[in-house]
Order: sequence, then structure tokens, then C-alpha cells
Amino acid sequence: MIKADLSGAMAFIDERELSPGEGRKLLDGLYGGHIGREGAGWLKLPVDYGDRVSDDIKKAAGRITGDSAALVVIGIGGSYLGARAAIDFIKSPNYNLLSKKTPDIYFVGNNLSGDYLEQVIALIGGRDFSVNYISKSGSTIEPSIAFRVFKNLLTARYGADGAKKRIYVTTDPGKGKLRSLADREGYQSFPIPGDVGGRYSVLSAVGLLPAAAAGINIDDMMAGAREMMEKSEADALKYASLRQALYRRGKKIELLCCFEPCFHYAGEWWKQLFGESEGKNGKGIFPAYTDFTTDLHSLGQYIQEGERTLMETFVTIDTARSKLRIPTDGDLDDGLNKLSGREILTVNNAASKAVKQAHLDGGVPVMELHVPDVSARSFGALVQFFEIACAVSALLMKVNPFDQPGVEAYKKNLYANLGLQ
Amino acid sequence: MIKADLSGAMAFIDERELSPGEGRKLLDGLYGGHIGREGAGWLKLPVDYGDRVSDDIKKAAGRITGDSAALVVIGIGGSYLGARAAIDFIKSPNYNLLSKKTPDIYFVGNNLSGDYLEQVIALIGGRDFSVNYISKSGSTIEPSIAFRVFKNLLTARYGADGAKKRIYVTTDPGKGKLRSLADREGYQSFPIPGDVGGRYSVLSAVGLLPAAAAGINIDDMMAGAREMMEKSEADALKYASLRQALYRRGKKIELLCCFEPCFHYAGEWWKQLFGESEGKNGKGIFPAYTDFTTDLHSLGQYIQEGERTLMETFVTIDTARSKLRIPTDGDLDDGLNKLSGREILTVNNAASKAVKQAHLDGGVPVMELHVPDVSARSFGALVQFFEIACAVSALLMKVNPFDQPGVEAYKKNLYANLGLQ
Repeated sequence: MIKADLSGAMAFIDERELSPGEGRKLLDGLYGGHIGREGAGWLKLPVDYGDRVSDDIKKAAGRITGDSAALVVIGIGGSYLGARAAIDFIKSPNYNLLSKKTPDIYFVGNNLSGDYLEQVIALIGGRDFSVNYISKSGSTIEPSIAFRVFKNLLTARYGADGAKKRIYVTTDPGKGKLRSLADREGYQSFPIPGDVGGRYSVLSAVGLLPAAAAGINIDDMMAGAREMMEKSEADALKYASLRQALYRRGKKIELLCCFEPCFHYAGEWWKQLFGESEGKNGKGIFPAYTDFTTDLHSLGQYIQEGERTLMETFVTIDTARSKLRIPTDGDLDDGLNKLSGREILTVNNAASKAVKQAHLDGGVPVMELHVPDVSARSFGALVQFFEIACAVSALLMKVNPFDQPGVEAYKKNLYANLGLQ
Repeated sequence: MIKADLSGAMAFIDERELSPGEGRKLLDGLYGGHIGREGAGWLKLPVDYGDRVSDDIKKAAGRITGDSAALVVIGIGGSYLGARAAIDFIKSPNYNLLSKKTPDIYFVGNNLSGDYLEQVIALIGGRDFSVNYISKSGSTIEPSIAFRVFKNLLTARYGADGAKKRIYVTTDPGKGKLRSLADREGYQSFPIPGDVGGRYSVLSAVGLLPAAAAGINIDDMMAGAREMMEKSEADALKYASLRQALYRRGKKIELLCCFEPCFHYAGEWWKQLFGESEGKNGKGIFPAYTDFTTDLHSLGQYIQEGERTLMETFVTIDTARSKLRIPTDGDLDDGLNKLSGREILTVNNAASKAVKQAHLDGGVPVMELHVPDVSARSFGALVQFFEIACAVSALLMKVNPFDQPGVEAYKKNLYANLGLQ
């Protein structure tokens, strides 16, 4: 399961600054409903989201695979990043380029670019497609516009009734504009429980339906999350507590780093989770994600010698899929023939150790989280690990992990600018 | 050309903190060779890189298009990000998914993931391909390993002589291991002038050959850069001076933001340019890139209400390609039918204005750079604009814009860990 190796960062604080007991108390409060009752529903998703919903998701995924060469997933923020992270991590960052039995998956409604929408329409071309519209409220402007565009396309192609059968809605089970629309039009719908906020919703239908459509075993994802809760909660609490201690010591930016490109969108998902949960009341660790070794040749200089306000968290994937070995080549005299025959993985692991030491030497505390592999089980475990760590971390700094009052400011200005209010 | 609208950020400083005269003097020093002589060669690329090199690049691109369905570009950092940025911005972030007459382009040697390499090999499959190996020294470990793998593949498929004709090398014209290899093996090669460092090399063959292979008009790119130098230098100097003034006032993180997803890799390129040029001696503005409106639903909360250490720079593209309009839909009661028939672009522009105002109100200084469109000419102009602003900005804070001593620390540790030293 997930293992936290925090030894590298301990030299930057005094051990007494950690508060493992306090973290445990806060997490127990979340479990017991004494704290954050309105937003802590995600804690129980792995155990009580229910077999019925899970069966419905698998059946719908089967239908989509049967009748569609493409699935258009409409959503933004928490209704976008988790599903994309799952598909990149478990399947491939090149998922749409692969030849496969499951549909291509296009994410839209996650920006306001007409160029972007037109390109997706062109990429779908004449192929059969379905739509999964994900929104808690149904009134967020980016997905609302994208839904208009793709509903229009579906209707032109399959007629009003045919279109209805190809629209799958993920929304609040009891309220909101999308809820009423789904009921009125008879779209098949999937629930986002009321006490699960967008950035904590990956392990509901929000993430599970697109993942299942991409051929991912969602039962394994849920099992991984449950296993994490049994075995790795203490590690999540230690991580939460240590990053807060480092923050109090002036480490204002946390870089999450992984040496496998398939983790990239998990990093984007993590940025929302932590940034939106902690960034309020003039406080918060600024979250940034870096692909290693790629970004060592970009931000590496800054990390090594720039302002000493950084902390790093390495996500180390202990087993890669590839067994690719470095070929020998007598023509080349770059000194690397000593590596001939070694798995590239061994070089990636050596790089990870080298970077960790260089950054520690340069004054950057480095925490390390070990994940077994790039399976669905590991992904589910990572999600639950970070969600627990994030909620507790925000509570430790005395901010509400479950609201996002600042997001409303721009929405209000936008509605006013467009004459919608 | 590029226009800087800095009015929104001026309220956060006193105008006397700006130093336009000092910036001008530093830039003149770079032009005249009194300052940074060893690394300022990029300033003259748009005027003196030469018609011969440009013709060679176009001919090679034509040959690649004629005999290859895929081009494998091997490089990392400055030998990777610029070309990728150009193709995404000018062609499409979905370039490889499009049906087209030019080859697919795969970037490798930019990480140490065996999984990633194996996927690219699988995606190329049995199709004909060529390789462009980009490295100033020829001894950086990531591209060296990738070159072994793909040279091996080429040789297996085309024989040793056939492989040689499909390897294009971009390197130092006079020295280094890759230079001697190219000479010995007879690879066609393209020069990176000695006084042009990796992160300033887009407008040399480093960026131009992959761009030309993707069907981009490289003469337009160069013309755009020249036009910027005639018309927008003063704006680049103002931007440099203002961001430094904001930094002295405690704005430690700069977020570059664009509302078109095709700018994403230009943002990644910008992060290297500024981070590697400024992040030294315990100083430097931390560079982060955000896709808007996507990341407003992720980092938006932090930007609005987190630590007040942020400044933002919006890149506004004045004309989008798409004329896509919002369809009307009588079934929907989400209030958006008032927008029926409007171009999506107008909503994107309204969002930009709304966000700028909301962030200013929240205490974040917002600078804005206007770019005419997503053409090759605009891309060349943007590159030269940011390179000038970056070099002057680093000089204003008294660090060397052209070295990267901190990148060596990890390389040294890595070589030691692998037993290569």
C-alpha cells in the first residue's frame, strides 16, 4: 500500500512540531460526523457507494462501448480532473492514440475555447458517440455551453429520442437544474452524494463512469481505497502534519513530483484538491506539479538554488510495467555503454535517488510516498490517501477543507459581464 | 504585434520603482556585446541565422515528410519545449490525432520512463520514421538513452546505411560528443550557435526543424520575431521592470495564464526560460503556468484568497480561429439561452475580463500581454518578446541570465549513483 518515507524532511523541523495525535482526532471527527459533516461524505464512498450504483455504471459503460466509438465527457474542475487522471495513470497518457476495444474519450466543457471544441468535433467526425455530462448544479457556464453544442450534434445525428439514449448524466440525486433536466428528459443518471464536493468526487460516478468506459476495473479502484484506509491512514496523517510544520517554517510552495509521465494528470488533480481546500483566508501552501526528470531541465535550477521556500513530495512508483533495456552501441563513445543491458527503470530509480539527495543538499525538504504500481488498485489508494491527508491538513491550519468561496467571485463577475444577471 | 497592458498592476507599486532607462541600457549592452557576450547570441537569430540554414531545414523537413510517417524528436529541456510549444500553438495540441500530410511527431528523451518509450515504439508500429536528435553536448543522459533505443530500431529496420540517412542531428557546430559522432557517421546536422543556450534556442534549428517538419512556415516565425524587435521592445522592457518591482514588494510567484489550451506548452517553455534564468543565489520569481478557464476551477480559489504572494500575467490572443456559435436549446432552463447565437469567443473574452477584475479585487496584480492570433508570426514574436524580457529581468535582479549551475548538482549525483564516474 502507500508508504510515506518522511525521513529526508525531518531535519528541517523539530519533531515536537508534529501533531500526530491532533491529526488522528480530526480524522476521527470527520468519520464520526462531528467535523465537516456537510462535506466529508467522500470518506465513506469506498465502503458504502453501493453495489447497485457500481453495477449501473458497469452496465452503462458496456452499452457505451457497444454503441459508441467515442465518449464525450463534459465537466470542469472536480468533474474533469479525476477521471482524466485515472485514465492516464491506469491506461495511458496516449489512451486516445492506442488501438483498443473501448471508445476514445474526449474531455470538453473544461474551458471556453471555441477552437478546442471545434477540434474535438472534427476528431469525432462521423463516428458514433455518447455524452457523459457531469455537473453537481448544472449551471456552471463552461460545461453548460459544451452540453448545448454536443446535445445539438447528437440530436442532428440520432433525432431527439435517439439523443436521449446517448446522454448519461452525473449529478446531485435530489436537487439542481441538471437533476430536473435529467428527470424531465429521461436521461440515465448517476448520483453525486450531497456531502461529496467536486474535488473529492473521483470515487463516485464522477470518476467511475468515464474510467469504466475506458475499460478500467472500478471494483479494483474501490478495493485499493479501502485497503489504504486499513493500512496507510497513519502515513497520510504524518504527511499532513509534516507539510503543515514545514509551512509554518516558511516553506510556502509544495512541488509534487513523479518520475512517470502517466502521473501528470494525477498531479493536476492533486493541485485542485490541495489548492482549493487550503487556499483561503490569506493562507495556504501553493501547490505545483512537476514531471521528473522532464522538469529538472526546466525548474531544476530554481529548485536547487532559487528562493528557499520550497518543499517537495516525490511519488515513487515501485514497479514499472516496462522491462525495456538499454541497447549497447559500439558506435557511441558517450560513456553510457556501461549501462548496456540494464533496464531503463534502474536508471529512473537512480535518478530519483540522485535528485532527492541533491535537493536535500540544496535546502529543500523532500518527502517521499511509495506506491506499488500503476494499477487501478494503486490509483484508488492514492486518491483516498491524498483526500484524507488534504482534509486533515486544512483542518490543522484551521481552514474549512470543503468550501470554495473565492471561486464565486469570478463567476459573479462573468455573469454580470455577459448580461446574465 | 505584442502589446503590454500593465495598468492593472500599477496600483500595486509606486511608478518611481520602475526603471525603464535601466532596462534599455541593459538590453543595449546585450546587443553591443558588453554584457553576457557568452550567451546573448539568440538576440540576433531572427536577423542573422542565415538563409542557408533555413533552406537546409526546409529541405530536410521536405525529405522527412516524403519518406516518414513519424518523426521522433529526441531532446530535453530547451531541446524539447520550444518545438513542442510551436506545434501546439500554431498547429494544434491534438496534432498527432489529426489526419494530415506531415508526419506524426513524438517527443522522447525527455524523461527516463521505459513505459513512455515503449508506448512511443508501439505507436510508431511498422510505419516509416526518422529521428531528430537535439543536444548541445551529446552527453545528457535522457536523450542519450533514447537515441540508443531509436538508432537501434532504425538500424534493425533500414540497415546501418539506411539508418544514417534517417538521423538528423542538431548540435554545436564546432565541439562536443554529438558533433564528432555526426561528423564520423555522416549524419546531416544543423547548428546551435555556441552563444545560444538551450532555453533561448527555439529560433535556431532546435525549434525550427521539428516545426518545419510539422508544416509550419518558419520564415513567418522569424519575421514575427524581427517585427517584435522593431515594435514591441519597449513593452518587453516595461514588463521586465514591473515584474521585478512586484517581486521586491513580496510577489514571489508569477502565474502565466492563457484562455486558449493551445498555449499550454508555450507556458511550459516560459517556465524553463524564466525559472532557469532567474532561480539562483537564493532568489527568483517562481514561475507557474495555468490554463484558464480550466484552472480557475482548480487553483482559482487559491488565487482569489490564498497567500497574497502572487502576480499574474495574462496572455490574451486577440483573434481566435473558431467562429463556433452557441446553439439555442428550448429544452434547457439554465438561463444561458440569452447567449444563443453568440460566438463562444465572446464568452471567453468576457471570462478573461471578469477574472482579471476579480483577481485585482482580490489583491493580485494582473499584467496583460496581447498577441494578435495563433499564427507562426505571433509565435515567433512571443518567443523573442519573452526572451528579451527574461534576460533583462534577470540582469535587473543581478543574476546571470545565461548559466544554470544548479542543474549540474543532480547530474553529478546521478552519474555517481550509476557508477559512471
